[in-house]
Formats: sequence, C-alpha cells, structure tokens
Amino acid sequence: MAEDSLMDEDRYELDRARVQAVQVAAEAGEAGRLAENLEPMHPADIADLLEQVGPETRQMILKVLGSGFDGEILSELDDSFRMEVIEALDLPVLVEAVRDLESDDIVDILQHLDPPLRGTLLNALEGGRRAAVEQALAYPEFSAGRLMQREMVAGPEHWTVGDAIDHLRARQDLPEDFYHMILVDPRHRPTGYVALGKILGHPREERLSAIAANSFHIIEAKQEEGEVAYAFNQYHLISAPVVDGDGRLVGVITIDDAMGVLDEEAEEDLLRLAGVSDGSSLADRLLTTIRRRFPWLAVNLVTAVLASAVIAVYEDSIARVVALAVLMPIIASMGGNAGTQSLTVAVRAIATKDLTGSNVWRVIRREVLVGAANGLLFAAVMGGVGFLWFGSPVLAAVAAAAMLINLVVAGLAGTVIPIALERIRIDPALASGAFVTTVTDVVGFFAFLGIASAVMM
Amino acid sequence: MAEDSLMDEDRYELDRARVQAVQVAAEAGEAGRLAENLEPMHPADIADLLEQVGPETRQMILKVLGSGFDGEILSELDDSFRMEVIEALDLPVLVEAVRDLESDDIVDILQHLDPPLRGTLLNALEGGRRAAVEQALAYPEFSAGRLMQREMVAGPEHWTVGDAIDHLRARQDLPEDFYHMILVDPRHRPTGYVALGKILGHPREERLSAIAANSFHIIEAKQEEGEVAYAFNQYHLISAPVVDGDGRLVGVITIDDAMGVLDEEAEEDLLRLAGVSDGSSLADRLLTTIRRRFPWLAVNLVTAVLASAVIAVYEDSIARVVALAVLMPIIASMGGNAGTQSLTVAVRAIATKDLTGSNVWRVIRREVLVGAANGLLFAAVMGGVGFLWFGSPVLAAVAAAAMLINLVVAGLAGTVIPIALERIRIDPALASGAFVTTVTDVVGFFAFLGIASAVMM
Repeated sequence: MAEDSLMDEDRYELDRARVQAVQVAAEAGEAGRLAENLEPMHPADIADLLEQVGPETRQMILKVLGSGFDGEILSELDDSFRMEVIEALDLPVLVEAVRDLESDDIVDILQHLDPPLRGTLLNALEGGRRAAVEQALAYPEFSAGRLMQREMVAGPEHWTVGDAIDHLRARQDLPEDFYHMILVDPRHRPTGYVALGKILGHPREERLSAIAANSFHIIEAKQEEGEVAYAFNQYHLISAPVVDGDGRLVGVITIDDAMGVLDEEAEEDLLRLAGVSDGSSLADRLLTTIRRRFPWLAVNLVTAVLASAVIAVYEDSIARVVALAVLMPIIASMGGNAGTQSLTVAVRAIATKDLTGSNVWRVIRREVLVGAANGLLFAAVMGGVGFLWFGSPVLAAVAAAAMLINLVVAGLAGTVIPIALERIRIDPALASGAFVTTVTDVVGFFAFLGIASAVMM
Repeated sequence: MAEDSLMDEDRYELDRARVQAVQVAAEAGEAGRLAENLEPMHPADIADLLEQVGPETRQMILKVLGSGFDGEILSELDDSFRMEVIEALDLPVLVEAVRDLESDDIVDILQHLDPPLRGTLLNALEGGRRAAVEQALAYPEFSAGRLMQREMVAGPEHWTVGDAIDHLRARQDLPEDFYHMILVDPRHRPTGYVALGKILGHPREERLSAIAANSFHIIEAKQEEGEVAYAFNQYHLISAPVVDGDGRLVGVITIDDAMGVLDEEAEEDLLRLAGVSDGSSLADRLLTTIRRRFPWLAVNLVTAVLASAVIAVYEDSIARVVALAVLMPIIASMGGNAGTQSLTVAVRAIATKDLTGSNVWRVIRREVLVGAANGLLFAAVMGGVGFLWFGSPVLAAVAAAAMLINLVVAGLAGTVIPIALERIRIDPALASGAFVTTVTDVVGFFAFLGIASAVMM
C-alpha cells in the first residue's frame, strides 16, 4: 500500500502493476508475457517505462518490441536515453521507425545524431519528406523552423466550403493531425485560416474568407521556440502557420508541440534556479549528473568564501563575543531566503512577460516595501530571541537592526539583479541565485558583525 | 534602447510602445486616443496591460472600454486583479461580458465570486447555459468538471460522414472551437472520436466508426486538473470527452485549457520551492504579498535557530579557534546548495511521474553517489582553501571531511525527503526546502565543529 501511494498512477496505463509485471516477465526471460504487457501501451508510456527500468530490462524490452518498434517511442524519450535506444536498435528497425513519423518529429530526432547516422536516415526518406526535413534542419536549433511540420493543408482565398471539401477528399497525403485550412494569396503568403469546424458547419457555397477566424497569428520560422510557446498560451492558438523570410507559408506548428516547449521551458527555469544545468533529468548517466551539478557548486564555493572573508575581518570581535558566531548564520540565512523569494517571483514574471519596462519601478518599490515590512516583523522576533538566549539587550538590538537591513537588501537585490541580468541578455534564472545570495550573505555578515563591533567593542 | 532590451516584445501586440502610448493618452485624459490604441488589441493583451499599469490608468482604460468590454479580458486576468476589475465595471456591462463567454470560462469567473453577485450573473444566463454552469460548479474546485466546457459535438456510432456533415450544418449552436466529433452509444457513453480532418477527408458514405482515432482518452469529471494536464501532455491530446460517475458524456476539455493548467502547475512548483505561497504574482496587493512571504521566512527562522543551537554547543571551541567561525558557513552553504539541486530534480521528476516506486532506490543510490563524487572534489578544494588561509593542516583536513559528509547527506536528504513527503501526501515542492536545508545546516555545523572539537581541542 505504502508503495502504491507514491502517486495516483492508477488512471494511467503506466501504473505500478504494469511496470512490475514487465519487470517480472523480463527477469524471468518470458518474452511472450513481456510482449503481452507491452502490446496495449501507448508509445509515450513505453518511453517512460524504458526510462524507469534498469539497463538489462531495457535491452530485453527493445528485443521483444523488435521490428514492431514504434517511432513515436523515440520522439517521447529523453535525449540521454534516446541515444542509448538508437544504438541498441538494428538499423532496419530504426529506419522503419523514423520513416513513419511526421516531419517535425523526424527533425527532432535527427538534429541530435552524428552526421553519418543522420545521413543514413535522411537517405531512407522518400524525396519530398527528405527535402522537408533538410530544410527544417537548416533553421537554427530551438527555432520555429525546427518545431514546425511541413505536412499542412492550405488553399486559395477564393475557395468555397465545397472546394475545400473536394480538395480534402481528393488528397492522398493529408496530415495525421490538422485543425485549420490556411488561406494563401497567389504568392503563397498566408492571409487567414478557417477552423475545420467552421467548414463543416457551413453550406458548400459559403466562401472560406467569410468564415475565416477573426484573429490569426503568423509565426516566423526564425522565431525562438519559447516565443512560439508564449504566443500559443497567450492567444489560445491551436495551430499557426509558419512563414519564411519572404512571408511565404513553409509549415505549421500545432499546440501539442508548443505545449511540449512550454513544459520544457518551465523545467529549465526550475532547474536553473536550483543551480542544475539544462536538460538534467533522472535519465542522465552518473558522470553526466556529477558534471552537471559541479559548476554551480563551484560558483557557490567562491561566493561562500567571499562571505567568509567578511567574517574574517571581524575575527577579534567574535573571539571576544562568541554569541556573534552563533547568531550570524541566522541573519544570513533569512536574507538568503527572502532574496530567493523575490528573485523567483521576478524570474517567473519576466518569463511570462508580466514584468516589463512599464512596471519595473513599481515592482522594485513594492519588493523593498515587502522586505521592510517583514524585516520589521523578524527584527522584533530576532531581537527577542537574541535577548532571551544571551541576555544582552545590546546584542539583541544589533541582531534586530542587521535583520531589518538584510531583508530590505534582499528585496532590492532579489528584484534588481534578475532585471539587470535580463537587460544584458543573461538568463536571470541561471545566474540570479548566485548573485543574490552572495549579496545577502555579505550584507548580512557585514551588517551584523560591523554594527556589533562598532557598538559593543 | 536599454529600456527596450528588457525582452523581445516587438513581435507581440503588447509592446512597450503600445503600453507607453496608452499611458500617455490616459494621463492626458485623451479618451479618443486611448480607445484607438486599445481597439486592435487582443483581450489577453488588454488583460496584461491592465495588470501592468497603475490604478488610475486602469480605471481610465475600463471607462474607455465601457460597454464594449470583452468578457475574455476577465478570463485572462489574474485572480487578484479580476476582483478589482469586476468591482469597477457597471453591472449591465459585467452581465453582458460574462454572457458572451463559453461555459468553462463563465465557471472560472463565477467560482471565485461572492454568492450574491454569482447569483445575479447566473440569473442573467439563459436556461440551458445556466444549468450547464450550475452543474459544473457542483464539481469540486480544480477538478475536470470545473475545467470542461459543456458545448460539444457528439453523434451516434452508426453515423456516416454525410450524417455528421448534415448534422453540423443544421445545428445553430455549434461551439466556437471543437476538433472532434465524439461518438456515443445509446446510453450517451463515449466510445471513440473522429477528428474533423478525417470527416472532411472522407466521402459522405464512409462510416464514422471506421475513421475514428485509434487511441482516445476519457476523462472523469472528478479527476484532478493536474492529472488532466498530464494526460494531455503525455498523450498529445487535442480534446478529450469528460464523463460523469455513470460514464455518460457531460462535457469536453480542450488542450488550450489543459495548457493553462500545466503552466499554472509549473508556476506553483517553482514558487513553492522558493517558499512563496500559491498564486503569488506581481498583481498581489502589498499586504497580500507580505502575508504570502511571511510563513516560509518564519519556518526558516525556526530552522536557522535550530542550526545555531548546534553552533552554541561548540562555543568554547570557536572562542579558542576563531577560524572555525569563518569556515563553518562555507560547509553549511555548500550542503544547502547541493541539497537544493537534488531536491529540485526529485520534485520535478515526481511531478512528471518519472520518479516512481519502480526506480526510487536507483535514484536515491545515484544521488548519494553524485554527492560523494562532488563531495570528494570539493573536500579537496576546501582542504586547500583552509590550509592556504589558516596554515593549519589539521583544520584543513577537518573542513575537507565535513564537506564530504555534508554533500553525501545533501544528496540523500535531497532525494529521500521529497519522496517521503509525497508518500504521506504532502506536496514535496512546498515543504522539502525547509527540511533539506535544516538537515544540511545541522549536519554541516555538527560535522565540522564536532570533528574539530574532537581532533583539535
């Protein structure tokens, strides 16, 4: 029971019972029972399963899936596992799996492969799709051009509902998923789009231009994928046409891809704020993980030494009043936490475009006021704790003053630092934490020990 | 220029120039120019604008929008601002704005209103929609039942493409957005769905059941909205039927709503990890913000005092060797950061269902190994720093040993604590930080000062 309560998995196909059944079958070497368990599973769940089991079970699952290996599993795998799985698959199986995918999924897989393997897989695609994938790969990484699919449905502006239906019924190569017919001018530039529901809801003689959506958004192929995800979320888009530099229609992005990007960007911000490099996941190998955690710890060591240098300045005072050494980490810790609160709110607001040039001063003023208000409250508590603990009203007053100063500085630094980093084009999620906690450590030790030395010695 | 570089806004309608034009017009009291600037803006951008400007400009914008106020603006507003705007609107304008919305958006707005105002707005809806909204409100908050819209398109399983087209053309009340026709059995239970693109791509005599999607997911109305968002993201759903306890079709959820939930949940995790309570945003009033930041700071004060109590145990040692006071914050800080790295990866993995009962032991072992590896590296660096700074090989060795111990403990606590919290049904994002940093502070001080006292005194 306790094992089951880790999360509510029971509504999904990848529940604990399924994973266990797979593991038991794999360990017993029962290929038939393993295949039975895998058969009804969604490719996304098989991908998760491959990530959760140990390496031997993983190899056995791949063997059982054999030539029935679904390319979608590759699309759903984490980068670090995808390479392992690709290496384990027989080349013909890999070629077949990739060939079945939509062009955007093929691009996603090929972009991370070594040139020789990439070439082999490209050569296996039929001409039109190969050209589509090559063109997408020519766009920069993390751009709309890499995210879009080339399979799309477009028609001239003058068409009627009847023309659209006749065209769609006649086409052999309709995309697997599409939600709009894009209207284009004679130079193939999108001028609007019609939701399929509107086409279905109107008589054959209705003109498409009369039932086109009121607002429609065009994405440029060079646009950064984070901006694309923002637009989908902000304007509730379901699909959007992508144009090249000349404004001509080259593809379409659908909301499920945008949702994936939104999810990745949120994960990136979360991990970066915690000092873990991009793309980290449980799927990483041990050495990769160690390497990914190291840099931020190294930065933190430097800033911690810097803060300790401030303490060293006041060694004499500490030797005389050891209570200073006992209380000083409290001041620094409170400042660090208050600063982290402010910077996290600021980083999120910058990411969602809620913190802009228009309200930056109002936000900074507000955070400083919040720091001052909580600073006063915690100064009172800190003074009380200091007095009760060490019986010295002067020490208590010094601790209270240092607490107030540090929380005000925390509010200021926690807002100004991410904003400043954004302005000089450094990701505030990545670097703010190191700067802010350095400021609150240094200011905390300096204010507390400095005032104490001036007043008490 | 520097102002403009805060972010790449130029591709969106709410660019800085637009906000400035609005502010200038509002301050000059030029209603005409203000209206001109607002006219082409998307409701989502007007909502952002209302959040970014000061209170006077906000009131002026609402006055200028007047009876043309679009209900979608309300849907897009942050909760804290929504109440202010609702209070500022004339009742007839509010009624008109709400009446135009889809049922899911009406539910989202009404659920947070006081009963009298809620009743007034409910009474203004026509019978069918009123019943739909009331039924949705009967489901618990944050459930699929609250998220779904009642406007949907369903037909019996035996229909052909022609039947579907005739039905859709004859219907007067087609939903604004729909992407599938849901197939239902005679008891109105969904048995599959057909993408509109498939209906359009097949001849009139084709049976719908023959072109239904291979896999389709049914959502239960009582399901938690976070689970719904997970399913949409995992299975690339565009829309999904919602059923009541008897399995009967009661509504449909579309991906844009699921995307909104996914975005909110990511924000919630991010803010909770930083010790900021739920739903915090720049839009909060000052007092709300102070109150939302206070609890975590209070918890942190308690844990910091606890850690300081460990220091107090070794006061005599510190009085004799002040270098201990200088170096001890470095050990604690490194442990805190390493622990935060581990816990953030664990919290994210739990949220994305990548950390389950199946791989929990492998993950814990891995994090401990990472802690040991980085612990060895930083023990060496710390030993070097300690020796160079204070010239004592014994002090250096003690600092190195404490560093190794604390980073191993950080990896262990950073993984075990969130997993344990999840098992006892406490949100790991909310509480892990306090526990993990308490552990690393206490262990850091205890290891360093304890070993030093044993070896050096």
